[in-house]
Amino acid sequence: MMRRAGRAVAGAASVAVLVGAGVAASQADGRRHVSLIVRGETVVTMDAARRILSPGAIAIDGDAIVAIDAADTVNRGFVGGEVLDLGSDVVLPGLVNTHGHVPMVLFRGLADDLALMDWLEHYIFPAEAKTVTRTFVRTGGRLGILEMIRSGTTTFADMYYFEEELAEVARAAGIRSVLGQSVIAFPAPDAATPAEALARATSFVEAWKDDPLVTPAVAPHSMYTLDEVSLTAARDLARRHGVPVLIHLAETKEEVEIARERYAMSPAEYLESIGFWGPGVLAAHGVWLTPSDIEILASRQVAVSHNPESNMKLASGIAPVLGLLAAGVVVGLGTDGAASNNDLDMFEAMREAALLHKVATGDPRVVPAPEALAMATIDGARALGLDDRVGSLEVGKRADLISVSTRGARQTPLYEPVSHLVYVARGHDVRTSIVNGRMLMRGGVVLTLDEATVVAEAREMMTAVRAAIH
Amino acid sequence: MMRRAGRAVAGAASVAVLVGAGVAASQADGRRHVSLIVRGETVVTMDAARRILSPGAIAIDGDAIVAIDAADTVNRGFVGGEVLDLGSDVVLPGLVNTHGHVPMVLFRGLADDLALMDWLEHYIFPAEAKTVTRTFVRTGGRLGILEMIRSGTTTFADMYYFEEELAEVARAAGIRSVLGQSVIAFPAPDAATPAEALARATSFVEAWKDDPLVTPAVAPHSMYTLDEVSLTAARDLARRHGVPVLIHLAETKEEVEIARERYAMSPAEYLESIGFWGPGVLAAHGVWLTPSDIEILASRQVAVSHNPESNMKLASGIAPVLGLLAAGVVVGLGTDGAASNNDLDMFEAMREAALLHKVATGDPRVVPAPEALAMATIDGARALGLDDRVGSLEVGKRADLISVSTRGARQTPLYEPVSHLVYVARGHDVRTSIVNGRMLMRGGVVLTLDEATVVAEAREMMTAVRAAIH
Repeated sequence: MMRRAGRAVAGAASVAVLVGAGVAASQADGRRHVSLIVRGETVVTMDAARRILSPGAIAIDGDAIVAIDAADTVNRGFVGGEVLDLGSDVVLPGLVNTHGHVPMVLFRGLADDLALMDWLEHYIFPAEAKTVTRTFVRTGGRLGILEMIRSGTTTFADMYYFEEELAEVARAAGIRSVLGQSVIAFPAPDAATPAEALARATSFVEAWKDDPLVTPAVAPHSMYTLDEVSLTAARDLARRHGVPVLIHLAETKEEVEIARERYAMSPAEYLESIGFWGPGVLAAHGVWLTPSDIEILASRQVAVSHNPESNMKLASGIAPVLGLLAAGVVVGLGTDGAASNNDLDMFEAMREAALLHKVATGDPRVVPAPEALAMATIDGARALGLDDRVGSLEVGKRADLISVSTRGARQTPLYEPVSHLVYVARGHDVRTSIVNGRMLMRGGVVLTLDEATVVAEAREMMTAVRAAIH
Repeated sequence: MMRRAGRAVAGAASVAVLVGAGVAASQADGRRHVSLIVRGETVVTMDAARRILSPGAIAIDGDAIVAIDAADTVNRGFVGGEVLDLGSDVVLPGLVNTHGHVPMVLFRGLADDLALMDWLEHYIFPAEAKTVTRTFVRTGGRLGILEMIRSGTTTFADMYYFEEELAEVARAAGIRSVLGQSVIAFPAPDAATPAEALARATSFVEAWKDDPLVTPAVAPHSMYTLDEVSLTAARDLARRHGVPVLIHLAETKEEVEIARERYAMSPAEYLESIGFWGPGVLAAHGVWLTPSDIEILASRQVAVSHNPESNMKLASGIAPVLGLLAAGVVVGLGTDGAASNNDLDMFEAMREAALLHKVATGDPRVVPAPEALAMATIDGARALGLDDRVGSLEVGKRADLISVSTRGARQTPLYEPVSHLVYVARGHDVRTSIVNGRMLMRGGVVLTLDEATVVAEAREMMTAVRAAIH
């Protein structure tokens, strides 16, 4: 369990550190010239010391953070080509959504309150079979990415089809992503067989593996929708290229029953038995993990994506998050697809994680705000293997950050910034988004996507989806 | 369980009906002149037939709805002094928040993630003892009412101190309220003894009982903080004046233990034994109600206010909402105070009610969207004894309505309006608020409170609160 984050005395914690070769354009007054300086009344770093700077500033050069400290300290050392003063906003690392199916945002609200099989068989599967094309993925991808940028997500993980389309859309929008090309036993919109899906995954990984924003990944759907041959092939492909593996695990009781029937093992035990687990694998949901499953994941350094809202709405169950944390498993948060949430707002995922485990355990102290915020930032980055680059605001990391407004009626008063971020802030309070040093949203206006066009295209697609299920 | 609301064929369901004496100012073309006509692409009525009109219109004369029907039908019969075309917004009855302590919004985020007794004894009680004055109630009242208007609440119930101050603030802001003057055994900010509190409650009820917007009520805190004499006196006062009674009931396991120790009964059984229950009583929380407690409440026509977010955050437990509904108990929704939520957004209360009971029962079909929306509108009005006036959009009821925007990225696509209102819409999507025929918010701008002043005054009070706990 993390300690309760205190408000660090700004400036006392550390001094600004210069990194990188390019101390190029120094000013006459000795200050280093950088591309952008961001200032805020409160800067929540999520670094190892959980420093909170008030007021704080971040010097960004190109894509990297070159200094982060008390505003005065940064002012003395740096001059910005641009200075973004965010006033009373709270500045924090961009949020990391560790699990989703972004283009499914086009199925948001298509069918709610149904039994899982009814929902899948009569709505989601027919809609997917009839509508999921390259265009669908681009249209839904843009809509979902727009929603994510607006609501403070700067890195998202995805498991879906035609991921190369999503990769292009994501790169153009400037958001960071880990995109898992799906491998599943059934005929999928982009591959008739698992072998075909693996071939697609191979090309996708090879084409994108050096991209600064897109991390390609392999996404074998689950142990119950794939056989050992395909699971192993997917795993080997990822190992060969050193890319992440995304998989669903123990989401429903039914999955556990299937594993018991087929293999007389739990889903986690079965995947252990075929040598699937290891660092770089992220298992989504983990609702029905047993204590011995948790030991397996901990020993294999497998991370888990916790998706409280989806698990509640589909009545999947309550994941053993406290057990996972106690065992040292890295836990990130995810929204899952908007078909089962019905949004991509990571602020809501944080708050739900904090609330759900309190009521589930009867202890109001569990999953405190600092823990929930860590899961949505630095631990999410760890879960995706990106913590060397993002998840906290630290010198040497990429400049992925957001700001949240604090002065509306609903946001007043503000006693403690971390608690405020988890229990009070919501996606619509996000005003600024910077990814890799590039401004994606400023003053609540998204700069890299044309909102009206994205929404209009999505509404057109909605008509096709509606037709598909009638 | 309610049926899944279908999209009614507009115009086929009923024709506009004229009510009231005043078909005064008829036009030359035979159309009746009314003060306001509101039009929307989708109008969710929450009437007995659960009509959804698309497009629909509402003719309002003074404080009352005189017609609600397909837009064309209303157009043919009425001409408005003002016409408010809400375009693609969804129009619905204003939300009814059945439980809260509005001025406590000034304690929002003061202390989170603590054990209940630690939270109360080291933060809430000291802060209340040192800071709750008439000014505090007015300042916190304005801030909370501003947040409620912004987020779609048009009627709220309150249990706190100096309710006459809140009454004045609420009336000036134009929101509808049921205000319960608190009676508690301990010295309170506005009364040293229960007898003094009862005297205050009596004056308050007498002063306000004919107000069109404020319904005064008596709020004996709970069975564990009052003895039989005070509980009975509070109940008798309410009976004498025909006003509602608001009480906390079975919120925590500790309360049940106290009742068992003192009286060898459950809290509900104890209140039954002293003749406390009856129509007009609203019990908040009911987390630990047993099946036989539920039978008592049902037989006495006692309504329950369900507060899922507060119950989760304080780890109180999960209320037996399905059992209450099955027994025919009227269940409304509430936010509770913002010290334990941390907001007053009834859209979030709706969504949380829908999600929580799904995961608690393992059945994704329970508390479907239409049920959650009913709890937040017509059933909340029933719980407060106001369903003859509000809770649905029907001819003869007061004109209390809101509209919700539907065209942002996050709100796209929209397949089914009721599902969208519960799972996708949030308080910040509310654009219009009309109460008793008066426009309180238009295009997202609150007209009856000056937001900057309200927030600035609240921020000043925050300083005093912070000092009180240090």
